[in-house]
Amino acid sequence: MASLPDCIRVLTAELARLPGIGPRSAERLALHLVRSDKDQVRQLAQILVEARERIRACECCGGLTEAQPCPVCADSRRDPSLVCVVEQPVDIISLEKSGSFRGKYHVLGGRVSPLNGIGPEDLRITALEARLAAEPIKEIILALGSDVEGDATCIYLAKRLADRGVAVSRIAHGLPVGSGLEFADELTLSRAMEGRRPL
Amino acid sequence: MASLPDCIRVLTAELARLPGIGPRSAERLALHLVRSDKDQVRQLAQILVEARERIRACECCGGLTEAQPCPVCADSRRDPSLVCVVEQPVDIISLEKSGSFRGKYHVLGGRVSPLNGIGPEDLRITALEARLAAEPIKEIILALGSDVEGDATCIYLAKRLADRGVAVSRIAHGLPVGSGLEFADELTLSRAMEGRRPL
Repeated sequence: MASLPDCIRVLTAELARLPGIGPRSAERLALHLVRSDKDQVRQLAQILVEARERIRACECCGGLTEAQPCPVCADSRRDPSLVCVVEQPVDIISLEKSGSFRGKYHVLGGRVSPLNGIGPEDLRITALEARLAAEPIKEIILALGSDVEGDATCIYLAKRLADRGVAVSRIAHGLPVGSGLEFADELTLSRAMEGRRPL
Repeated sequence: MASLPDCIRVLTAELARLPGIGPRSAERLALHLVRSDKDQVRQLAQILVEARERIRACECCGGLTEAQPCPVCADSRRDPSLVCVVEQPVDIISLEKSGSFRGKYHVLGGRVSPLNGIGPEDLRITALEARLAAEPIKEIILALGSDVEGDATCIYLAKRLADRGVAVSRIAHGLPVGSGLEFADELTLSRAMEGRRPL
């Protein structure tokens, strides 16, 4: 078999490293790109590099931003007494899309995970405490995942922040909206049962 | 909702134009890329532009290549008496992967499609005729798709090449290997029946 031209193979390998792109999609993308208009390809490459150059972490919340501080931290219409703690910058984007939160954010940068060598000192907890001292924060909402490490991180944070004079809450776990009982796993159902609320 | 930083939105829109990348995958890719290592992103952009700059159509067969002529056209071990006619350069790659063909190729660049304003003069048929005059070609194998336009293009080519002293054949249509009768549509089954061969 005559193999693909070298530069297409290199491009395919590079594209296959991206999340959600398997070897076959990578090859299809590479073949599409080498047949696309040259100017369009140059433009895509330029946009890619520029985006990477411009995006940095917000010095306050740790979210992805072009400006310092980020638009959320700078927005005086948002409630400064509520801070939602998330693991990753992308979690902010998911929450913002839901439109369900009008406070500020704080990115931890991960969760406590002894097996992976990630301790509390590797997370942005000191930065969170500094914000508690400087900002009029009344409630910290923990919006972390609900696996073992997420649970452990929540418990650790609740303890560490206990004597800071702020309320600490955690987002609810339960049945996804639009889903039925038959699609829910046992853990989700037991969390949903525990978290039941009076009607 | 605080929207995504501008440069991420621009990058997402650009990625969403690629085949097989929907709006959600595009956003996930964009968010991954702006958090990746800067050098890696620059490298990806460079590989992308370089691949596009280096790849061109083979002057002989019309396939994708870095060299002129392409490795297949230049390969003296391949049978010069057989030429397989395909619609697109990528079709060559599929056939090469199957390892089932040891002759040369010719890319038409499409198929006759009056509805889309594509006539025979828009395809690389004159180039094929020039090759028939210059090369020791004995058989032309038409490996085009088997829809109405593919069929029409095959019939047109068979007529046009009839008095050139070459055999013209078409690849077989039938049951895909590994599939059962219950998954085949009626047209495929009727083609498979027509194309039956003695055992």
